[in-house]
Amino acid sequence: MSLLVTGTIGIDTIITPTGRAEGVLGGSCTYFAAAASYFGPVRVVAAVGDDFPAEMRGVLGGFKGIDLTGLNVRNGSKTFRWGGKYHQNMNSRETLFTELGVLLEAPPEVPAGFADSKFVFLANMHPGVQATMLAKAKNRVLSVADTMDLWINTARDHLLVLLRQVDGLVLNYDEAELLTGKTNSVTAGRHILEMGPRFVVIKKGEHGALLVHRDGLAAFPAYPTENVVDPTGAGDTFAGGMMGSLAATYAAGGDPGSYDSIRKSLAHATVTASFTIESFSLDRLRKLSRAEIDARYTEYASMTRLA
Amino acid sequence: MSLLVTGTIGIDTIITPTGRAEGVLGGSCTYFAAAASYFGPVRVVAAVGDDFPAEMRGVLGGFKGIDLTGLNVRNGSKTFRWGGKYHQNMNSRETLFTELGVLLEAPPEVPAGFADSKFVFLANMHPGVQATMLAKAKNRVLSVADTMDLWINTARDHLLVLLRQVDGLVLNYDEAELLTGKTNSVTAGRHILEMGPRFVVIKKGEHGALLVHRDGLAAFPAYPTENVVDPTGAGDTFAGGMMGSLAATYAAGGDPGSYDSIRKSLAHATVTASFTIESFSLDRLRKLSRAEIDARYTEYASMTRLA
Repeated sequence: MSLLVTGTIGIDTIITPTGRAEGVLGGSCTYFAAAASYFGPVRVVAAVGDDFPAEMRGVLGGFKGIDLTGLNVRNGSKTFRWGGKYHQNMNSRETLFTELGVLLEAPPEVPAGFADSKFVFLANMHPGVQATMLAKAKNRVLSVADTMDLWINTARDHLLVLLRQVDGLVLNYDEAELLTGKTNSVTAGRHILEMGPRFVVIKKGEHGALLVHRDGLAAFPAYPTENVVDPTGAGDTFAGGMMGSLAATYAAGGDPGSYDSIRKSLAHATVTASFTIESFSLDRLRKLSRAEIDARYTEYASMTRLA
Repeated sequence: MSLLVTGTIGIDTIITPTGRAEGVLGGSCTYFAAAASYFGPVRVVAAVGDDFPAEMRGVLGGFKGIDLTGLNVRNGSKTFRWGGKYHQNMNSRETLFTELGVLLEAPPEVPAGFADSKFVFLANMHPGVQATMLAKAKNRVLSVADTMDLWINTARDHLLVLLRQVDGLVLNYDEAELLTGKTNSVTAGRHILEMGPRFVVIKKGEHGALLVHRDGLAAFPAYPTENVVDPTGAGDTFAGGMMGSLAATYAAGGDPGSYDSIRKSLAHATVTASFTIESFSLDRLRKLSRAEIDARYTEYASMTRLA
């Protein structure tokens, strides 16, 4: 299966109530690809500067199935850096600093060999750039975009154009309200469907996620856990689990856009994200096995099995 | 089955972003009993003043299976009145006024015929009063208490005594944090189990509920709905659905305290609460049928069925 993701690869500094990690591997593309790699191959398209440590490249390349052909290393450019500090309850955070670096330059080039990608995930970027990247995958079967408040506020027209081209949208609870003006998540989701996508996933962090699909609704509690070390990357890991699961469904002959396929993929997403937060950076994802994902999926499914 | 509930019967004034209801039937006992009545008989123990309208008594008595023998009508006393205003997103509210009335007097008497009650729900009251009421049901099989921030702050010792006597505790997310000092809900739940109960249900409003049971964890999303008219009574209806379901499980020969029984009861709780919020006061619950509850339960179960 050919799943392409484009987004950021960054160097993070994270402060939580219980610890600190300085200059560690981060970025939306990174977390997404690591998560999706447990379900099948992933093609990464992202740019970094010449300061990007070989060790970090090694970490990413160490995930079986991650193809780094599309990693653009730019001489004289700086890798994206971000610092964040979590508040006591781990539910909210403040940005300490942002050094955009290479993100201020032209978007990464998509290798010719990636043009046949069937699944495309557009991690959070300017929606105009997302649309440009999407156009490279002409044979796509299913595409999903993430977005954020910045673009809803400053690039709404571009976002509305993008929404007519993607199959799905993933965004946070408050962003769905911002985009639609609707405080009820189901109502907000239905409004987003009218903008184009056939499904929208509204993420609520520790409160789980809501699927609003043309063929039905479903709500997913987060996997209940005490083991929260660093929530960074949970949302991107969630998306990686979802898209990896959908690509695998397609490879197995299923319809990846159906209500049931997406429902199942969101359980994979939930479970995969629950591992990420157990450590800083990709530490837990690096040690993860597909068997662990499957075991937790079974546990999660049994918690929610009612009839 | 013999399910006893003690709590408030009140007259509410509710203002929401879309409407207003003045002087309508409310109170924890009221919502609880109405919800539980769809699963089996309920015995109400509560006090009202002589200003309590015959019409409201008629509404309560109109629910098949609600036994009002324990409704103490006190001459010269005033019925509890509460006014609340919901904010735009329906997730938070402010109290406009509280007229405690009869709640400042001695707690209601428990009729002798109710002493054999097998199931007891102690709606939110001073925990010392809750303990006194609990002691009347000597043959109880399963008892659950609700509480609130006021008692955690002002009557903690009484609450800790009560927690050693009940099987379960139901409380809100922020109250669980206040009681335990733990921001993680699972951790907070585990700490509460160490205080005595064998299970705790942490309610998160529109984000659902978390069960922390000695034999396992489970998370329940709220039933996803756009139809939110008035959230008042959702938590008490939730508790009524839970206890009604557990009493019915016991009547059918099951173990009402088991992880699986409580898990199933919380799905009944979720679904029953989802009807309450569709109208002001008990308007929707009055028109409800068990068939509607069962149909929505099946729908909810199918949304969350993963394997």
